[in-house]
Amino acid sequence: MIENISDSSVRRLSAYLRQLEHFSADGVAVVSSQLLARRMNVGDAMIRRDLALFGQFGRPGVGYDVDQLTANLRKILGTNMRWNTVILGAGKLSRALMEYPGFHERGFEIVAAFDIDPRKVDTKVGDIPIHHMDELETILAQCQARIAILTVPAEVAQQVTDRLAGAGIDGILNFATTHLETPQGIHIDQVDITAHLEQLCFHATNAIP
Amino acid sequence: MIENISDSSVRRLSAYLRQLEHFSADGVAVVSSQLLARRMNVGDAMIRRDLALFGQFGRPGVGYDVDQLTANLRKILGTNMRWNTVILGAGKLSRALMEYPGFHERGFEIVAAFDIDPRKVDTKVGDIPIHHMDELETILAQCQARIAILTVPAEVAQQVTDRLAGAGIDGILNFATTHLETPQGIHIDQVDITAHLEQLCFHATNAIP
Repeated sequence: MIENISDSSVRRLSAYLRQLEHFSADGVAVVSSQLLARRMNVGDAMIRRDLALFGQFGRPGVGYDVDQLTANLRKILGTNMRWNTVILGAGKLSRALMEYPGFHERGFEIVAAFDIDPRKVDTKVGDIPIHHMDELETILAQCQARIAILTVPAEVAQQVTDRLAGAGIDGILNFATTHLETPQGIHIDQVDITAHLEQLCFHATNAIP
Repeated sequence: MIENISDSSVRRLSAYLRQLEHFSADGVAVVSSQLLARRMNVGDAMIRRDLALFGQFGRPGVGYDVDQLTANLRKILGTNMRWNTVILGAGKLSRALMEYPGFHERGFEIVAAFDIDPRKVDTKVGDIPIHHMDELETILAQCQARIAILTVPAEVAQQVTDRLAGAGIDGILNFATTHLETPQGIHIDQVDITAHLEQLCFHATNAIP
């Protein structure tokens, strides 16, 4: 079944979840697909279609129970469980991510970081220990992390990816601006902040006056 | 013409550009759409179709001149010019972005940051001055920035967005995990790192063994 579900549908599940969290924080208990759609600037038919891929949620004419749909979306995404996560590279971006409270709130626990800089190795950021890259396989086996965030320089990104795959990591979020060959059985997603800025430029450059 | 071009096509232009930069760094002068496609795990027909939207590039049977196509893609995206960029919020993520060398290399110059914390206001990160939010409109008028990066707390993101739009900003890259109402004439793109992690979880949870 999962092979029939597009990446964009899955991305929208995250967006629905985020919006439901805002509704919940505002004390909204039940929400219609129309209201959810309006808040997100998408069509309500698309929301119903996306959710129908995973089951029957909500009651016709009433709407979705916010807490229930939140729980269901978390279950579909898998974030109803805790995900031990490691971070490769302990530079400035990495440190900002290590201290970002939103990960913990949403099920991601950064349990270890790795670097090769002797000034960083064996120190901590908050509670998170920074290990030497040489210890990668040993620590991964201990901490049962399945997700890795890659903030290493582009030149070593592929080599680190291959080691992570060999050590049984399921998914890698890559912040390096390089395309990675994906080892079998692993999923790689990329955050290319410059590409996002380029999109904005494109629209500003080509705007119809 | 631009209204016929999908967001995903524009996103792929950035990815082609990034890959061409790698080819150039490796000393490759001419590249076929097949080789470009193989490196990026996409179909070569898609690459030819994407590029054909913007003109005639490359020579049949020979391929693309790497430097020429790089220059053309930069022109299409608008990054052949410098883009003065401001950053809202001067927390840890913001500081990591301010010190990221990749922006300058690709045409983006962070010229000012804004915060309300008196311990941060009137200090600098590298060469970048941190101003008080009260000065936003004045400084924006001086520095001719057209792009803004938003790293402020979710609760104030909409209000800051509206002020940026009022001050003539063309595009906003939003790191806050909240949906923003888009004022007319402005383009907003979002980087939701947690949503990227959720995608990885979804695939790890629903993997076909």
